[in-house]
Amino acid sequence: MAFVSMGLSDLEKYHPERTEPADFAAFWAETLAEARSAPAVLETTPVDTGLTTVTIEDVTFPGFGGQPVKGWLVRPRGAEGPLPTVVSYVGYGGGRGLPHDHLLWASAGYAQLVMDTRGQGAEWAVGDTPDEGPGSGPAYPGSMTRGILDPATYYYRRVFTDGVRAVDAVRTHEAVDPARVLVAGGSQGGGIALAVAGLVPDVAGVLADVPFLQHIRRATEITDAYPYKEVANFCKTHRDKIETVFRTLSYFDGLNFAARATAPALYSVALMDDTCPPDTVYASYNHYLGPKEISVYPYNGHEGGGGHHVPVALAFAASLVRTRLG
Amino acid sequence: MAFVSMGLSDLEKYHPERTEPADFAAFWAETLAEARSAPAVLETTPVDTGLTTVTIEDVTFPGFGGQPVKGWLVRPRGAEGPLPTVVSYVGYGGGRGLPHDHLLWASAGYAQLVMDTRGQGAEWAVGDTPDEGPGSGPAYPGSMTRGILDPATYYYRRVFTDGVRAVDAVRTHEAVDPARVLVAGGSQGGGIALAVAGLVPDVAGVLADVPFLQHIRRATEITDAYPYKEVANFCKTHRDKIETVFRTLSYFDGLNFAARATAPALYSVALMDDTCPPDTVYASYNHYLGPKEISVYPYNGHEGGGGHHVPVALAFAASLVRTRLG
Amino acid sequence: MAFVSMGLSDLEKYHPERTEPADFAAFWAETLAEARSAPAVLETTPVDTGLTTVTIEDVTFPGFGGQPVKGWLVRPRGAEGPLPTVVSYVGYGGGRGLPHDHLLWASAGYAQLVMDTRGQGAEWAVGDTPDEGPGSGPAYPGSMTRGILDPATYYYRRVFTDGVRAVDAVRTHEAVDPARVLVAGGSQGGGIALAVAGLVPDVAGVLADVPFLQHIRRATEITDAYPYKEVANFCKTHRDKIETVFRTLSYFDGLNFAARATAPALYSVALMDDTCPPDTVYASYNHYLGPKEISVYPYNGHEGGGGHHVPVALAFAASLVRTRLG
Amino acid sequence: MAFVSMGLSDLEKYHPERTEPADFAAFWAETLAEARSAPAVLETTPVDTGLTTVTIEDVTFPGFGGQPVKGWLVRPRGAEGPLPTVVSYVGYGGGRGLPHDHLLWASAGYAQLVMDTRGQGAEWAVGDTPDEGPGSGPAYPGSMTRGILDPATYYYRRVFTDGVRAVDAVRTHEAVDPARVLVAGGSQGGGIALAVAGLVPDVAGVLADVPFLQHIRRATEITDAYPYKEVANFCKTHRDKIETVFRTLSYFDGLNFAARATAPALYSVALMDDTCPPDTVYASYNHYLGPKEISVYPYNGHEGGGGHHVPVALAFAASLVRTRLG
Amino acid sequence: MAFVSMGLSDLEKYHPERTEPADFAAFWAETLAEARSAPAVLETTPVDTGLTTVTIEDVTFPGFGGQPVKGWLVRPRGAEGPLPTVVSYVGYGGGRGLPHDHLLWASAGYAQLVMDTRGQGAEWAVGDTPDEGPGSGPAYPGSMTRGILDPATYYYRRVFTDGVRAVDAVRTHEAVDPARVLVAGGSQGGGIALAVAGLVPDVAGVLADVPFLQHIRRATEITDAYPYKEVANFCKTHRDKIETVFRTLSYFDGLNFAARATAPALYSVALMDDTCPPDTVYASYNHYLGPKEISVYPYNGHEGGGGHHVPVALAFAASLVRTRLG
Amino acid sequence: MAFVSMGLSDLEKYHPERTEPADFAAFWAETLAEARSAPAVLETTPVDTGLTTVTIEDVTFPGFGGQPVKGWLVRPRGAEGPLPTVVSYVGYGGGRGLPHDHLLWASAGYAQLVMDTRGQGAEWAVGDTPDEGPGSGPAYPGSMTRGILDPATYYYRRVFTDGVRAVDAVRTHEAVDPARVLVAGGSQGGGIALAVAGLVPDVAGVLADVPFLQHIRRATEITDAYPYKEVANFCKTHRDKIETVFRTLSYFDGLNFAARATAPALYSVALMDDTCPPDTVYASYNHYLGPKEISVYPYNGHEGGGGHHVPVALAFAASLVRTRLG
Repeated sequence: MAFVSMGLSDLEKYHPERTEPADFAAFWAETLAEARSAPAVLETTPVDTGLTTVTIEDVTFPGFGGQPVKGWLVRPRGAEGPLPTVVSYVGYGGGRGLPHDHLLWASAGYAQLVMDTRGQGAEWAVGDTPDEGPGSGPAYPGSMTRGILDPATYYYRRVFTDGVRAVDAVRTHEAVDPARVLVAGGSQGGGIALAVAGLVPDVAGVLADVPFLQHIRRATEITDAYPYKEVANFCKTHRDKIETVFRTLSYFDGLNFAARATAPALYSVALMDDTCPPDTVYASYNHYLGPKEISVYPYNGHEGGGGHHVPVALAFAASLVRTRLG
Repeated sequence: MAFVSMGLSDLEKYHPERTEPADFAAFWAETLAEARSAPAVLETTPVDTGLTTVTIEDVTFPGFGGQPVKGWLVRPRGAEGPLPTVVSYVGYGGGRGLPHDHLLWASAGYAQLVMDTRGQGAEWAVGDTPDEGPGSGPAYPGSMTRGILDPATYYYRRVFTDGVRAVDAVRTHEAVDPARVLVAGGSQGGGIALAVAGLVPDVAGVLADVPFLQHIRRATEITDAYPYKEVANFCKTHRDKIETVFRTLSYFDGLNFAARATAPALYSVALMDDTCPPDTVYASYNHYLGPKEISVYPYNGHEGGGGHHVPVALAFAASLVRTRLG
Repeated sequence: MAFVSMGLSDLEKYHPERTEPADFAAFWAETLAEARSAPAVLETTPVDTGLTTVTIEDVTFPGFGGQPVKGWLVRPRGAEGPLPTVVSYVGYGGGRGLPHDHLLWASAGYAQLVMDTRGQGAEWAVGDTPDEGPGSGPAYPGSMTRGILDPATYYYRRVFTDGVRAVDAVRTHEAVDPARVLVAGGSQGGGIALAVAGLVPDVAGVLADVPFLQHIRRATEITDAYPYKEVANFCKTHRDKIETVFRTLSYFDGLNFAARATAPALYSVALMDDTCPPDTVYASYNHYLGPKEISVYPYNGHEGGGGHHVPVALAFAASLVRTRLG
Repeated sequence: MAFVSMGLSDLEKYHPERTEPADFAAFWAETLAEARSAPAVLETTPVDTGLTTVTIEDVTFPGFGGQPVKGWLVRPRGAEGPLPTVVSYVGYGGGRGLPHDHLLWASAGYAQLVMDTRGQGAEWAVGDTPDEGPGSGPAYPGSMTRGILDPATYYYRRVFTDGVRAVDAVRTHEAVDPARVLVAGGSQGGGIALAVAGLVPDVAGVLADVPFLQHIRRATEITDAYPYKEVANFCKTHRDKIETVFRTLSYFDGLNFAARATAPALYSVALMDDTCPPDTVYASYNHYLGPKEISVYPYNGHEGGGGHHVPVALAFAASLVRTRLG
Repeated sequence: MAFVSMGLSDLEKYHPERTEPADFAAFWAETLAEARSAPAVLETTPVDTGLTTVTIEDVTFPGFGGQPVKGWLVRPRGAEGPLPTVVSYVGYGGGRGLPHDHLLWASAGYAQLVMDTRGQGAEWAVGDTPDEGPGSGPAYPGSMTRGILDPATYYYRRVFTDGVRAVDAVRTHEAVDPARVLVAGGSQGGGIALAVAGLVPDVAGVLADVPFLQHIRRATEITDAYPYKEVANFCKTHRDKIETVFRTLSYFDGLNFAARATAPALYSVALMDDTCPPDTVYASYNHYLGPKEISVYPYNGHEGGGGHHVPVALAFAASLVRTRLG
Repeated sequence: MAFVSMGLSDLEKYHPERTEPADFAAFWAETLAEARSAPAVLETTPVDTGLTTVTIEDVTFPGFGGQPVKGWLVRPRGAEGPLPTVVSYVGYGGGRGLPHDHLLWASAGYAQLVMDTRGQGAEWAVGDTPDEGPGSGPAYPGSMTRGILDPATYYYRRVFTDGVRAVDAVRTHEAVDPARVLVAGGSQGGGIALAVAGLVPDVAGVLADVPFLQHIRRATEITDAYPYKEVANFCKTHRDKIETVFRTLSYFDGLNFAARATAPALYSVALMDDTCPPDTVYASYNHYLGPKEISVYPYNGHEGGGGHHVPVALAFAASLVRTRLG
């Protein structure tokens, strides 16, 4: 991919109208209230990994509808809490993966909760959490159009709620400092992190790399890349349901969460990314309400900043947890 | 695709071992008994199509778990019953489509029930039937690996049961001659038809074009084409679940239905078909228990015989319904 | 394909200059006069199809140069004429196909003449009509550049004339109401229908889906898709003949027919169609002289409206034949 | 392409049955007699090329049906005749090209007649010779299936006859030594050269590089590469005409010419060539009747020996023309 | 990729002839003697990573020709040595990457030296080590054909020597137990590890995942995948140098190292791997002289066992370092 | 590729800013002075080609760092000098090729020196000249990023210097008229020719077809085609070195040579060329200081004008050598 869409100076000014349904806030308030009717709890089982510097636990917490959602809790061995903590969400098609996949944050002194993504986890990283949704109507293969004809049945209603409940759950753990919980993720994981930041006012920070699920309708018009293409393909077949589809998606578009989120945010964007085109990322960034920074990777596609972004992210996180500690 | 796998003379002799679990018959007997605990019924609503030679009704019948399954019932206008009837199943990724899509059998004097495929119907032909399954674990996008870790939760348990119940339901309709019900389909539709023929002893005939879901494990080893590749991809990620996957699939492999089916069957096969490789089709054909014929299309891929096969199929069906009429 | 070329609001205003040679009208008047020097006639032979609701005849009529052109005549069995009639033309690379392929219009009460496309009919639907042209010079594989160095020898001179003669011929048939003949087709078929509508003033209506052969030079500049690409490829090799090529094509560009056609027209266009890019379709639609409507399919490629467009087309046709009947 | 089909030692022994119709010889005798009813002649017009070491003439000679076929005659400037001469044929899709394209043989002291290929010449090298055939039925784009339903109308009947008449014509030229005429070509050009060698007993030698049109039916079964694929695609659509197609092709298969040709031959073959798979080339080579050599290029595809084969070809030709001069 | 080459039971018996030049041992003895004329040393510079559980140092050691080769030394923070140590080599096209990329082995209690691969490191993981070779002749892009016309100038002579010198160097470090040094790597890294195991008799173990550079000539004949294809492409252009190329490669083929190596080895192989086809891996495994195990991943391509292989590798390593400690 | 970037009328006006480092002239003056410290000389060895109209010699001359660079000297046999002479440079990935590849210019009465391109010559045409550069750091496969972190070590510093030295060397040959030396090439060859024209004020003319290495940074932003993509890929991995890369490239961008060159120039450009996009070519052409012409090929990709451009080039060259002769 050569440069996608507009140049950097136009991206920096790109501030499209958001499409927000009138009952957006009510929809989410009700959804979360319902989910929170069950108490937050984090069940943990130790995993024998053969590792000596970190401990890893197999965890379960109640997500949407109280359904059990899996995850890993990774901590520096012997660290004395309460620790600053990262709740991380996974990219599209993957699940929580295997214990050894998640060494970075714990090696840097953080606790990390890796949330499994319900129903995903068979394309690259394995997953273990079923998606107990209502029987959804016909869907294009993948997760993007499951239950898409109604906001109440849409797949991401369950996932974003899981994301919020992961924060709720981890905060109950003795090793975790509830005031210093960051949310983080790349691609879909970044999209979930932004949604959670818009729904949980007191997270300490957000790290969203090349986030997915931002400015969705435009994405379906300008890119042929999956997974946005799943939506376009659904509309290609169900030619009579296009407006229904985009009405549903307006409850889930990251721009509407960004416009509400107040925690400090670090975005990253890649200018040759056709999976999450840079104008969709900038649309979100430019609407983001809280303090914010963005790292730009001009010659990258959806891999974004990769390992070069790790020190940036560690420094950003460190500045927040130090600050918050006071 | 040039010629796939072996040459025609070897195909004609290809008779691989089947892998059949000891409780195969019990599994299906129990599954069907459970489904049949609800009475068969076909609810119909007329559709205003603007057509003058045929009538089309939007139908619903109880499938697996009694869940409502949609379909179209298409009949020659003014024909006096009871009519010979074709229950047809749809290819992978499609649903029952739109009413005008199904004119052939009715134009030839048959009633036709087109069964929707639950949860599919967003890739090419639209569908309207949700898949109300148990929350399935992580699955590769598509239907092939939904609930694949257990025969009880596997997607095709529900679909094959729907297929059987479609025959049960259509037989209750006054315009239908229950003694002259054929099952038919191409690709996945052919796979469902063969399963139904193995489960419903008294169907009058089977038309299975380039049938899918035959000799599945071998297919995953020799072709890179979807949808068999979904299974391979699941095994690629879930490296530790390969034997579990194929144990489940042994309850659904068409070879085990073919070895039980006794109705006269017309198969078709294409020698350059890498979606449903010819040796998987011949493996099924060669195991097929009842009277059988096969049409071979040497230079075709998965499109098979196309319109050239239509007169063959009409003649085969005509010979059966005449015979059965006695 | 994501959205091709401009957005919908710009498409609606897109009204490019046409390139029309001074002797355009004379060229076609002369061409048709010559073709009409032989009398119109429709020879018919019944086909045994096994169908009960419709009758199908194998027909032949004199086309360009009086050469025999094949077709199918499909009618509702037992209908009493004279019937409203659709003359339909086939998409690129296909021929008239097989009898069972054409059940829709007859099932809706129309007679339908399906015209074979000379020399085509080996890529998807079979054909049976040779192209008896003058020996044409070197051509890029396909039909688009046959005889392209001179309007007199260009392939579509023969095809468009066949299209006109099909209308002439069908009107001689006793079952056909000559005042209620519609022309219809998709892609190349739509391009032929528009040409015929520009050449035969009294057709009762035009249905042109994602029509090909409109605004040709622009198409060769903006799309890499075949068959427009055949012209680009010819110009790529014959670098010294570009202006000759486009001079010839100016006698065949649909914009020049649209600007003359007066029958009510129903267009359809797909916004992700790179085979017949939407601006080429809108260029034609915006130049169309008669009453007109257009159906827009935003997320579709060259498949356009598919089955969703069928009820629209049936309703449009019904309104015309009722009107005309008056 | 990795190694195609069998290994080298098996290729050297590969000697499949030929399929030769009973009237093969009569068919060709009659075809050539008819073509030779017009006298051979080579009309020449000088071309101003700006070149100083060679002269190039634009030539025309009567081919099949006496139709004018174009070519270039290239000679070393000032050479005193009669010269040894190469008649060369062009690869698929190209025509005679431009004058400056043909400097090799003349620079080595030979006269060269480059024969244009009728109807081709728009894909890479330009051509100028129309194909004045009978109106052929539907054909797959390209030349391979033009008129394929009857040997009498098949395209290569005209082309091979042109090839023979090119030899006849060049032998009438004063600068040419008729006893030292070689035929040469690569791919389709090699196929034509082999056909001519089988039809004109007294050519002095044959150079056939990666020759096309050898063992055709097998090629359609083992490769997906064009142009053999054109035949497969025709059979894919016209499923009922497969045996008719291969009956026609049996009059044109290079194996039947190779089994008759007696002039010394130099073949070349590439082991990773999927356009002209090595077993089709070896099938021809192993059937070749006259003295023969073959150059093997193990890691090449259809480009074959390229410039590395030029010295081999020059040496082979030199040995023949010296010998023949005696 | 479906199953590549032969089935598993044939792979287990596959024991092809090796091609070993007579002076293979002398060539390597001389090469290493020359390299070892400079003393082994490991220069280290601490890196500020922000990590708390491990320390990472930027290291340099003398490789082939005494040239400085870069690496990372990663250790569990505060661990008391001497530690069991893994020297790891990188896959094709990558360099040593960034410090945070290498947390696994240190988190499990090992020291790890990650060796940079000279001249590589711009395709995925960054590198920092120039390849100071003699000016090599023309090469196909990539590393595989640099200096390939002579074993003395071939690229992998330098790389394998670097690999040996990495072991020499790390053994001089105070934190390292020289008796417990394992070599490890995937793909090219596995190939280097096997070469080092064949050249350094006293390494404690080898972990070679889907190793590259095994049975090279066969690989070039059966796969089109890079990087083996670089060799095939070189031979495609340099048609006259094929035997020279493979003579050079016989000094570097992993089969000749495997046949000498005595340390316990853990291989892994993927049956759908076309980059390093399974028969090339099994050829090496079956020739391997020391104690050995192999993990088979049937549905994987070149990604091999991925995270599922990590516990296997950790357990294998643990068993060795415990044993050796004894 | 459809039309790339802007339309022709915009291309004709496209005059972007150049990025020229302050010491550009000094850098090159120093580089050439150093190279010219060794005397220019052309060593020649006759080649036995079997050709009669031309003679070919295998030549060697001192290039960058005095390193031996290979070439072919081709001349009309028996021509009496001093001859007008073309120094030609080769496209990317190729070397000087084989002697018989270079017949055109000699056949037109010119001497021609074909310069080998160091280190290239394994992708299509063979080469024989090693690239004796300093050990360069990690590079993306290919030549574009070798030594790219410093202008002093960058690959094209050596190549452009070789190009200048080729002119110096050929002028010492007795058969060559030093006042009538043209430089020529296509793609990379055109880029070298333009660089040489900017560095050697008294060349008699320049022929640059679809030249590469013009307006490089923009090219990396707008095209995904290689070899520009090598630079983009390097920046994709080495995210922290982007400005370093483009600083180096500013010493080698053709725009800075074009702005200095005064010899008459013939450019050619293809409007569908995504390898060397037309705006990069026009950017160079519009900055070119001397008299200039450009041939535009609207429907061509990187093959450009091909054989149709040969007469244009011969006529352009002829006009110059006649003029210069006076």
